[in-house]
Amino acid sequence: MPYEASSPAPLSPAWSADDLQPPLFCPIDSAINPAAHRVEQRAVAWIDEAGFCATPRERAWAVATKSADFYARFAPNADEDLLLPAVLWVYWGFAFDDARCDSGRHSSHPETFVPMAARVQRALERPCPSEADDAYARALRDIATRFRRTGTSVQFHRFVAAHRAWLAGVAWQIANQAAGVMPDLEDYLTMRLHSAGGEPTFAMLEIANGMEVPAAEMDAPAVRALTEMAILTAALDNDRHSLAKELNRRQADQNIYTVLLRRHADSLPVAVREAACLRDRVLCRFLRLRETTLPRLSAAGRCYVDGLAHGIRGNAEWGLRVPRYLSRGPVPEESGTAPIAWAERPLDDRPLSLPTVSWWWDPAL
Amino acid sequence: MPYEASSPAPLSPAWSADDLQPPLFCPIDSAINPAAHRVEQRAVAWIDEAGFCATPRERAWAVATKSADFYARFAPNADEDLLLPAVLWVYWGFAFDDARCDSGRHSSHPETFVPMAARVQRALERPCPSEADDAYARALRDIATRFRRTGTSVQFHRFVAAHRAWLAGVAWQIANQAAGVMPDLEDYLTMRLHSAGGEPTFAMLEIANGMEVPAAEMDAPAVRALTEMAILTAALDNDRHSLAKELNRRQADQNIYTVLLRRHADSLPVAVREAACLRDRVLCRFLRLRETTLPRLSAAGRCYVDGLAHGIRGNAEWGLRVPRYLSRGPVPEESGTAPIAWAERPLDDRPLSLPTVSWWWDPAL
Repeated sequence: MPYEASSPAPLSPAWSADDLQPPLFCPIDSAINPAAHRVEQRAVAWIDEAGFCATPRERAWAVATKSADFYARFAPNADEDLLLPAVLWVYWGFAFDDARCDSGRHSSHPETFVPMAARVQRALERPCPSEADDAYARALRDIATRFRRTGTSVQFHRFVAAHRAWLAGVAWQIANQAAGVMPDLEDYLTMRLHSAGGEPTFAMLEIANGMEVPAAEMDAPAVRALTEMAILTAALDNDRHSLAKELNRRQADQNIYTVLLRRHADSLPVAVREAACLRDRVLCRFLRLRETTLPRLSAAGRCYVDGLAHGIRGNAEWGLRVPRYLSRGPVPEESGTAPIAWAERPLDDRPLSLPTVSWWWDPAL
Repeated sequence: MPYEASSPAPLSPAWSADDLQPPLFCPIDSAINPAAHRVEQRAVAWIDEAGFCATPRERAWAVATKSADFYARFAPNADEDLLLPAVLWVYWGFAFDDARCDSGRHSSHPETFVPMAARVQRALERPCPSEADDAYARALRDIATRFRRTGTSVQFHRFVAAHRAWLAGVAWQIANQAAGVMPDLEDYLTMRLHSAGGEPTFAMLEIANGMEVPAAEMDAPAVRALTEMAILTAALDNDRHSLAKELNRRQADQNIYTVLLRRHADSLPVAVREAACLRDRVLCRFLRLRETTLPRLSAAGRCYVDGLAHGIRGNAEWGLRVPRYLSRGPVPEESGTAPIAWAERPLDDRPLSLPTVSWWWDPAL
């Protein structure tokens, strides 16, 4: 089934995602915070108070993101009270993403998205409320107040910078949408490092764990590379998890499959295989670089890098079961419960030569 | 001369900027690095090698930014070899601004600006060259290589984050241009904190001075506030310096005067006065907060905050004389040499109540 450049929907429901996808390779132990359920209850009560879900259906989809389960896997050892604000941000982030980024009125309008996102970003940064704040900005300010209380200035400022980078990545995606551009693989990987929201998600690790990573460790090239590899692995896994839904919706959104179909692969099964190989190549390098880097780090640095690994594993498990990806109707269904079959070995383990990421394989790291 | 909402050019050459502007208040000592001239020669040779100026006229305007003079005032005590890469970035930044931001084909097209800027940003971050790099990306990578060699990972990563924030601010300005939106004062100040390029400019201070500021100091709310106040003071001074040129070009670009004319002031003299008061209010708070903050800082932190003050003064002196702002013809004229008359006292010293900046006056800082 060769992809036609003129086709409006390169992903066809003729293919079933389940048939196409090989099992995931993820040799990282599964772990979840014992407070996950209590934090979920507290977070859902907060969503109802915060009021950014405009309709009962929006609320149902927000709750169905299972963000508490998600982040409880990123920080399995965090105190409940430090875990909560991070979980609130994940719920907020998914809702904001659906309402203002991937879909909604801004999704192909950079001229309105960019100013709106800049105002939301400033609501995060400034300690003072503004009458101009909408429900999303107010909720984000509330989360920021909690981070300022439970975290250090350094942790908070890192989160602020990561949040800006996320919104810049989304702006790129929206700009492509507006211009009718499907990015090439190099651009897509660079964009996805930001647009997937992995940066703020992983930046919350040290807040949730209550351990500030020394600046010289956090900004060391090896830890930067590990962070980017964790982000990209999780982002590509999310593309994988979304494929079933994308096939169902017949959409031609920017994802690893549409990118590969347009540029390299000549059929969806080839693109799926190539994407899976690419993801395994990144994960294998992550695992090896983690081993050589951990002994050089402080306790806080080790906790952060362990959190990156927990996040990769947690995101994969969550994504294989969460109604956000599994439900195909207008209302979310229950979470999946089928046991997950994991791959025994990676599909590929070679370095990538794309300039945007090839430095992750630098032996000097 | 009341401003008409329907007028395409709210700034009319009927007013002369020189007649309108009160002298600047700036009680900070003047200082310039003794290596300024040598660094200028080295930087101009680099511009010719780097090749990002497409025509002799572009080159003439790049050289006429006097970026070496500019940054030599920001870092009067820096070693020549540490000053040079910062100066190169200033030349690069002005050229990029003219070719790709404020004017040029992207200036009202966020759908092309945002992806282009994201690629340039990645060229800064990734150590590997790419065949897809254009002359601007290649030159920026060269500067990044120099920063990596002369600075620490922490300093470099701070610069990278500041650079991204600058490009996000420019994207906002371009989005407004595309949508035909003149921002209100609150939005304009938030935007200008980023779009003016003050963040990367000040982030280079610690690289040029060879002193890494401890993270707990750099991210402390007081130092964040001082940094933002220095950025806004310099940005408003640049709006002031540009006014003569804007009046001459009859443009209605987004600047503090067009913003105030549209929203508050009823004539250009009123807007000029209001802008000057606003700028003095920020500078007065900067000066006072600097006094109370300096004793709490390490030597590197003090050097950074002193650099913010040098930058405010240096930017003001440079802007009052540089051909970039003074020349009105198609080719740059010589620098101004007339003595500068400074104001003895501020026009206003009250706190600002705008939510985006009111926290700068928090007595707890």
